[in-house]
Amino acid sequence: MSFIDELKYNSDGLIPAIIQDDKSGTVLMMAYMNAESLERSIDSGTTVFWSRSRKKFWRKGETSGHVQKIRSISVDCDADTLLIRVDQTGPACHEGYRSCFFRTFDGERLVTTGHRLVDPQTVYGGK
Amino acid sequence: MSFIDELKYNSDGLIPAIIQDDKSGTVLMMAYMNAESLERSIDSGTTVFWSRSRKKFWRKGETSGHVQKIRSISVDCDADTLLIRVDQTGPACHEGYRSCFFRTFDGERLVTTGHRLVDPQTVYGGK
Repeated sequence: MSFIDELKYNSDGLIPAIIQDDKSGTVLMMAYMNAESLERSIDSGTTVFWSRSRKKFWRKGETSGHVQKIRSISVDCDADTLLIRVDQTGPACHEGYRSCFFRTFDGERLVTTGHRLVDPQTVYGGK
Repeated sequence: MSFIDELKYNSDGLIPAIIQDDKSGTVLMMAYMNAESLERSIDSGTTVFWSRSRKKFWRKGETSGHVQKIRSISVDCDADTLLIRVDQTGPACHEGYRSCFFRTFDGERLVTTGHRLVDPQTVYGGK
């Protein structure tokens, strides 16, 4: 797919993908894709990332069921960042929060401001 | 400031910062900060980035006047990405669009879906 080849990947072949809830506009998370994970995402209609730590493809929700159905894919002016709007099932964060950005600087330190939807123990079975 | 030291910077000492319009929720851009640019941002109340291409600090809006007044700074679960909500003066994109993510994949190619607020020639004088 031509636009996949036009993107600017970093030296590891990755491009950051900002994931935004399509309905609420909440920024849910950021993760990395390579060209193949982007192609798999488009083909399946759900997000597939590249795990930098595990060095493997990672279909969001494959363990938790918290899949992200893709509504749109946008590209920034430099073609080095993606913005993907999704319908998120359940929490986006593996810690059970709706968004991974659940901590906010209050002027002195980080405080929890996010909404925890589920106990992560119940999702991943304590793994 | 302690939370600045707790963040996980990449091998270049940088952390990506997603910039979101505080009122509309529109994701405006993504750029990179190092610890000092984040400290400068907090001290000034406006965003200061690190330009990877020019290798210098870059106060958003210093040429264009399109400054970003910081409303909140959040950190993700891995502490390796920032989400900064701002009041954006004018367009965020140097190409004159409200958001840098002005191109969207239509299933075949990228099409312009963003709203151009100003002609970039009038902002940067053709530079």
